[in-house]
Amino acid sequence: MKISNLNEQIILKIFRKNFITMPNIFLGVNKNLGEFNDAGVIELDNGALLVVTTDMIGLKTHIPDIATPEQVGKKAITVNVSDLAAMGARPIGMVISVGIPQDINVEFLEKVAMGMNKSAEEYGTCIFGGDINKTDDLIIAGTALGLTTKNKLITRNNAKIGDIVCVTGTLGDSAAGYFAWKNNLKLPKNIQDVLYPKFLEPIARIKESLILKDLGIVSSCGDISDGLGWELYKTSRASKVSFVIYEESLPIQNEVFYVANKLKLDPLDLILYYGEDFELLLTIYGDKWKESIKKAHKLGVNLIKIGEVSNYKENNILLRKDNTEYKIKNVGYDQFKS
Amino acid sequence: MKISNLNEQIILKIFRKNFITMPNIFLGVNKNLGEFNDAGVIELDNGALLVVTTDMIGLKTHIPDIATPEQVGKKAITVNVSDLAAMGARPIGMVISVGIPQDINVEFLEKVAMGMNKSAEEYGTCIFGGDINKTDDLIIAGTALGLTTKNKLITRNNAKIGDIVCVTGTLGDSAAGYFAWKNNLKLPKNIQDVLYPKFLEPIARIKESLILKDLGIVSSCGDISDGLGWELYKTSRASKVSFVIYEESLPIQNEVFYVANKLKLDPLDLILYYGEDFELLLTIYGDKWKESIKKAHKLGVNLIKIGEVSNYKENNILLRKDNTEYKIKNVGYDQFKS
Repeated sequence: MKISNLNEQIILKIFRKNFITMPNIFLGVNKNLGEFNDAGVIELDNGALLVVTTDMIGLKTHIPDIATPEQVGKKAITVNVSDLAAMGARPIGMVISVGIPQDINVEFLEKVAMGMNKSAEEYGTCIFGGDINKTDDLIIAGTALGLTTKNKLITRNNAKIGDIVCVTGTLGDSAAGYFAWKNNLKLPKNIQDVLYPKFLEPIARIKESLILKDLGIVSSCGDISDGLGWELYKTSRASKVSFVIYEESLPIQNEVFYVANKLKLDPLDLILYYGEDFELLLTIYGDKWKESIKKAHKLGVNLIKIGEVSNYKENNILLRKDNTEYKIKNVGYDQFKS
Repeated sequence: MKISNLNEQIILKIFRKNFITMPNIFLGVNKNLGEFNDAGVIELDNGALLVVTTDMIGLKTHIPDIATPEQVGKKAITVNVSDLAAMGARPIGMVISVGIPQDINVEFLEKVAMGMNKSAEEYGTCIFGGDINKTDDLIIAGTALGLTTKNKLITRNNAKIGDIVCVTGTLGDSAAGYFAWKNNLKLPKNIQDVLYPKFLEPIARIKESLILKDLGIVSSCGDISDGLGWELYKTSRASKVSFVIYEESLPIQNEVFYVANKLKLDPLDLILYYGEDFELLLTIYGDKWKESIKKAHKLGVNLIKIGEVSNYKENNILLRKDNTEYKIKNVGYDQFKS
């Protein structure tokens, strides 16, 4: 059977079921619900936790042709650092493997490298090792390393009923930019200027993650890389809770409605089922919510309440609108099916 | 200018010169001669050192068509673990990013995964995280993590005049297997059975590295992934020493001579300028040599003396034969030029 018949989750299982995990792994593909989380975690001798994540991008398959080489480099770093942010880990360094096709321009490659370094610096990390290889497409596989401690690690595993569901910024901008680009929709400059930066040069919320983790108010966290719906289901399965999301609370910019309207798309679909917002999806302890939001805002972190944690019922994550509840589908952006 | 005009070292520089290293990096692309070493090293708070290496293989560009899928998976692990062996680091876990083409068979991919896990287990490590992506070729980028301490780290930086140069096993088997395969040379079974395992399923010398490191006899170490000549030059530049290698001491199996003879190749070229032996290239403290070899053999580690460390003179690494000395060229296997 060809891979093209399978979705991303089934393909992941092919690997996961064959990998045996050692005792020093604190969170991994087959350990402590690691499969629902954004990075693996190794327990070091002194109780410190080493958080490790890897992510690959390919120029042909992952990057729109309008992205600058600097943006290609930045994206390769952001996709990895975002997974550290999801776990509340302080970045300590990165390594990269770069697959390089023979026909690429030196100037292009140099700008990719500059974008990588700039992005790493912005996140307080650096690239200290790597490898280059001859490949058919430009492929960048990064690995980001971070540190935290057992009592500071944040995962998707501990959301509790009554906790408040938040995100750290507006949703759907990247997807709206993507659909505009894909459909050759010419955007007015002011609209493009809002959507394209989040589409082409997204930012990992590492600063926000470290602040929130230190406040001790987070019961669960993940990054929104494959659509809000999919991310909610991951946290749901890890924490054995469900969610009610308030439609009117979803932070959606007018520019997203503009694109959705022009392309006759449901703006909610862009938020729920398409990815790459790279905002954090958090649950905050219910009894700490009021003080939490004050503290977070004071420290410059945007916390937008979008719902609440509810009783676990499998495949039952709801969107509430005008006292009616709709089921959010358990699907996300699947690169193998698109 | 196209990349195809450049060699691997120039391409590496494009990246290296753009990467700024942070203070917590103990050895890295731009720090403490990291560029000549096989992995990067981060200093952790408690004085422990985290050794990190990444390496990518592509099915089309790196793997002979006669390799089984299990061998593909094993190779992806070995190339990474071998770099930990070069630094004397105890493996603590690996993550992998896998780029998957749409037309690959599920059964093939499953066997690749099984090979990965089997290899990781054999090296005392495990795959605890990863990512899959849609790409045009099967691409496996692994990152291996290891731990050591400052007084146990072995690098290429500390070879001293009078030290003894050793390798951990026979050289040229992989290159001979490669040339036989590439030239469609039909090998007698007994010869193929010697060469093909090292060509298609090489072993990283992690066990040997950990034993030798603990004996405290190693002044420098690297793995031979790009030909003995190239590896000698890397250690030479890192340690500011030169080498005299005794031709008659090079451990070359008869099967390598057989292939060289059939294909009218110089067997020395296979050893010096072609890669993937994955044996360790070590220098042992000169004053500890006699006891070292006894201890190593007692612990089951093969240490084969091939030369000595000499006064530094740039580009002056010599092969001695019958009291005549020839210069070993400063070239290695360059995938971008082959």
